[in-house]
Amino acid sequence: MVEAIRAGQRLLTPTELEQALREAGFARYHIHHPFHRLMNAGDLTLGQMQAWALNRYCYQATIPKKDALILARSEDPEFRREWRKRIIDHDGEENGEKDGGIRRWLKLAEGLGLDRDMVTARRKALPATRYAVGAYLDLVTQGSLLTAVASSLTELFSPVAIGERVPAMLARYDYITEETLSYFTPRLHQAPRDAEHALALVTRWADTPEKQAEAVEALLAKCDLLWAMLDALHHAYVSPGQIPPGAFRPKDHRT
Amino acid sequence: MVEAIRAGQRLLTPTELEQALREAGFARYHIHHPFHRLMNAGDLTLGQMQAWALNRYCYQATIPKKDALILARSEDPEFRREWRKRIIDHDGEENGEKDGGIRRWLKLAEGLGLDRDMVTARRKALPATRYAVGAYLDLVTQGSLLTAVASSLTELFSPVAIGERVPAMLARYDYITEETLSYFTPRLHQAPRDAEHALALVTRWADTPEKQAEAVEALLAKCDLLWAMLDALHHAYVSPGQIPPGAFRPKDHRT
Repeated sequence: MVEAIRAGQRLLTPTELEQALREAGFARYHIHHPFHRLMNAGDLTLGQMQAWALNRYCYQATIPKKDALILARSEDPEFRREWRKRIIDHDGEENGEKDGGIRRWLKLAEGLGLDRDMVTARRKALPATRYAVGAYLDLVTQGSLLTAVASSLTELFSPVAIGERVPAMLARYDYITEETLSYFTPRLHQAPRDAEHALALVTRWADTPEKQAEAVEALLAKCDLLWAMLDALHHAYVSPGQIPPGAFRPKDHRT
Repeated sequence: MVEAIRAGQRLLTPTELEQALREAGFARYHIHHPFHRLMNAGDLTLGQMQAWALNRYCYQATIPKKDALILARSEDPEFRREWRKRIIDHDGEENGEKDGGIRRWLKLAEGLGLDRDMVTARRKALPATRYAVGAYLDLVTQGSLLTAVASSLTELFSPVAIGERVPAMLARYDYITEETLSYFTPRLHQAPRDAEHALALVTRWADTPEKQAEAVEALLAKCDLLWAMLDALHHAYVSPGQIPPGAFRPKDHRT
């Protein structure tokens, strides 16, 4: 179906486009990556979990900037009001009850025994992680607004990933507590709310075969990006002897 | 020594700074990467060589754009006149005797049996390669001009890499000819000319400990970038079963 859209053969109905996005996106979603499979099977070492949390922090910390860049591209206050919720979700409130996603991710990193300052400095993250995050900012600024919004649709699948990951992590890693994983709880309602909004826009805006193909391409480009971050982690921390110079070296790492 | 510069403890003489750059850069240069070691030992399959040429094309094709962005940052016609040689070297002349580096790289790719259009389209390259190339453009535009110029200093080491690679490839892969490797011949005088120019500027411009540290950091950042591209290749094409979805799959690849 994706190839047919790419070829621009005919205009899909909104429902067909939604289906195409869901199918193509889920097939390439990083839930299927070997690193996540190892994680959910309980087969990662503490050091590998730390490397994941450290690197993923680079991604988490960039989300509000990414969303601000998208917000800044729209002329429509209604769009911007809806989109700013994402910024608030991740940056939180200074002294609020509600931590933002970034602070919760730091809790996760600290819960895994990482030093907070080391994590926030990002110097020990894999260069490849930083490049992928930079490519995400390029994607949402250099393509169309449709591309930027469609690239966020990986959130359609995030509840599935969280639904697998949280119980698996609690069951299979004795040092992981519910408190450590508090990042994921609010995501279970935030992600579907955001995805629903983005999906409604994408199916409305993509009113030619070219734009429909563009939307699917954007979602796949985002899937590639998440996949590449796990490739980098897998290569550095699962394949033996491949941590690049200067990157985080877990204490328990076999060389 | 690099740590001392980073700490900004004292101003190095130009000779000391050059020495620091040469030492720190060479230690992190991708010549030491396992993928290059396999290549020089004659241990790569044709498919792995193809993957290397295909992905490296993304880097080669971006060099003139990268150099134009650097040229555009300078107010100094003398600097720009010198720097534009790099653009000419890679883009070549339309009907000239002298092919540019990009065309020569395509010869290499074709010599390895790749389809020219597939290579220039770049869709089958690893996403991680494209991200690293994008990060290179960010590095030369978002940092200082000193950072941009210092990041080019990996060329100091390129004759060593070529001196190892060309004889090793000719000796150990019977399908590789001198014609296929014609990219590398002019690089043996272009790279030292460019590196000498950049080195003279960097040692003159870096007149505080902070700027000296910045220059070393820029060179290491570039080394990280070249290293990350080989990490991505190694993961996808040497580690079994890890080619990301959508990327080039060599005909001879074991799955």
